Amino acid sequence: MEEANVFNVKYPIIQAGMAGGATSPQLVAAVSNYGGLGTIGGGYMSPENLRKAIQKVKTLTDQPFAVNLFIPEQSFTAEEVAVHSKRGMELTQPFRNRFGLMTKKVEKVQESFEQQFEVVLEEQVPVFSFTFGVPTDNQVAALKAAGIVTCGTATTVEEAKQIEQVGIDAVVAQGSEAGGHRGSFIQSEYLPLIGTMALVPQIVDHVTIPVIAAGGIMDERGVAASFALGATGVQLGTAFLTTIESAAHPLHKEQLLQHNEADTDVTYAFSGKAARGIRNAFIEAHTSTRLEEIPPYPIQNAVTQDLRKASSEEGDWNTMSLWAGQGLRLAEQLSVEQLMQRLTKAIPHQ
Amino acid sequence: MEEANVFNVKYPIIQAGMAGGATSPQLVAAVSNYGGLGTIGGGYMSPENLRKAIQKVKTLTDQPFAVNLFIPEQSFTAEEVAVHSKRGMELTQPFRNRFGLMTKKVEKVQESFEQQFEVVLEEQVPVFSFTFGVPTDNQVAALKAAGIVTCGTATTVEEAKQIEQVGIDAVVAQGSEAGGHRGSFIQSEYLPLIGTMALVPQIVDHVTIPVIAAGGIMDERGVAASFALGATGVQLGTAFLTTIESAAHPLHKEQLLQHNEADTDVTYAFSGKAARGIRNAFIEAHTSTRLEEIPPYPIQNAVTQDLRKASSEEGDWNTMSLWAGQGLRLAEQLSVEQLMQRLTKAIPHQ
Repeated sequence: MEEANVFNVKYPIIQAGMAGGATSPQLVAAVSNYGGLGTIGGGYMSPENLRKAIQKVKTLTDQPFAVNLFIPEQSFTAEEVAVHSKRGMELTQPFRNRFGLMTKKVEKVQESFEQQFEVVLEEQVPVFSFTFGVPTDNQVAALKAAGIVTCGTATTVEEAKQIEQVGIDAVVAQGSEAGGHRGSFIQSEYLPLIGTMALVPQIVDHVTIPVIAAGGIMDERGVAASFALGATGVQLGTAFLTTIESAAHPLHKEQLLQHNEADTDVTYAFSGKAARGIRNAFIEAHTSTRLEEIPPYPIQNAVTQDLRKASSEEGDWNTMSLWAGQGLRLAEQLSVEQLMQRLTKAIPHQ
Repeated sequence: MEEANVFNVKYPIIQAGMAGGATSPQLVAAVSNYGGLGTIGGGYMSPENLRKAIQKVKTLTDQPFAVNLFIPEQSFTAEEVAVHSKRGMELTQPFRNRFGLMTKKVEKVQESFEQQFEVVLEEQVPVFSFTFGVPTDNQVAALKAAGIVTCGTATTVEEAKQIEQVGIDAVVAQGSEAGGHRGSFIQSEYLPLIGTMALVPQIVDHVTIPVIAAGGIMDERGVAASFALGATGVQLGTAFLTTIESAAHPLHKEQLLQHNEADTDVTYAFSGKAARGIRNAFIEAHTSTRLEEIPPYPIQNAVTQDLRKASSEEGDWNTMSLWAGQGLRLAEQLSVEQLMQRLTKAIPHQ
């Protein structure tokens, strides 16, 4: 398993870089201190907060860790933002009314990737992982010059090949079981939702860089299965969300522990981009909404921000984005140490 | 791996009981003669043809083999059939026109399960496997009395539990990667599409009968991964469809060998029941059709029968039901012996 060492970790087990607040420095450092690779989910962080999180993690561990960011896709003019977000506000108003939220003007829809990226370089983060696309040639060169190991996210063989072609060091094969946002970035009329069992060996056959399996892996059985499929590492999100060290909202943790494998859906409702979460009233209300009606990512994400916040503050899980993978029945409230003990049992001898 | 022996076979590798003609007696017998479990896909066979197929297999092998049938669900009055099929004919007329097919009156929508079942009992088939539901208590008792081993199909933990509760000997955990019809039978507003990596361990934890993994398994890697997840056997469909011995239509084989992992969709268009196949013009034309408009199974299956036949006869794959799983890139034209040699490499020592 020499390839695992692309990340310079003892165990090729990655805690996924879930944006939205769950990946506290405590969680990231606990994973890295055990010998895995903790990841700061930095996608929604301001450059300042990202820097603070990185510096905090550095005080908690001297082991490698990662920062995960969102590669920017489409950009929108102020006018487009205004038009789309107005429609989004109208669409979601029945839910906004529940919390007395007025229609709001959306201005900033996302953080500056360029500024986040600068922080990653300046802080010489050990591993940079990303999703929703590939960095530019210049960015890849800058990462290499800084000695930063890189890891992309693919949902098809073609995406994995593109990631390899731009010079990235490793690729996560994100199966359809995975919770949270789909990493798909090659535009297609059809969203690829390929199960981990099928996706991993097909990607392994078409790239030479290490392949990390993700999607539906919850315990030592999933880890062993991933290695059998040809992966040289695994990435888990949901399994880490319910750990003691996770900063996921208590209601999110509670719902993860209470729901089952058939209770998730892939929805565009919360952010305008496909993501898997626990089916609730907000998702159900959008199942028959035509995709064109939902504002595109990241506009819809900005539209629903105060709604999700109000919902979690008032203890109502029906308008929260409860990202979750399909391995849900296997979620347990463990410490990172307990979870890692279980997962590392299945790592092949090195 | 004692549990594998529930089927009295050397290798717990099942060739899936694909209805529609691919499972020739030659294919079934070749799998069983190698030490796996060949399966006659009997779902659409008349009782007479089913008996002939069974008797033919018996002349080709003295090893155990299975018959797979469809458990009947909803039944329809002649009037309901008339109303639904008229609508189905109208919906599909643009495609029917391509082949000069007139609107047809649909009378018989499916074979009698009771008569097919009688044949299974009378012929003392070694293994009876089924999908779309569970047999009645009387039917289970009759199978047991005849010494026939039984195997059901589940797409959720709840379905697996129901199968165990009625006294079935083993259960196939059908992951979302699987080609052909979904076996889901617990009515729900949402079709469960749970990936194999997530589904298998969750089912393993909730039943005591042997669990057979299915969905996305194409080679020795998928077999090894399935065992790692806790399965004690595997079932493969797509991988057997392209074997030399398979009686799948040559165009079907050709398309399986030419398409990739992102080229399949779950569609209701061909039969009124969810099934995964290679995306073609007929599937695409129905992607925005509301489910309520498509006649329910098995009426739509009867509606599209002559269309599928004409399409395959004229060499046009765009209106054929090209069932396929998501492991498509791994499909190869091998003999059953070559495929089984590869798959059995990964069977744990007994």
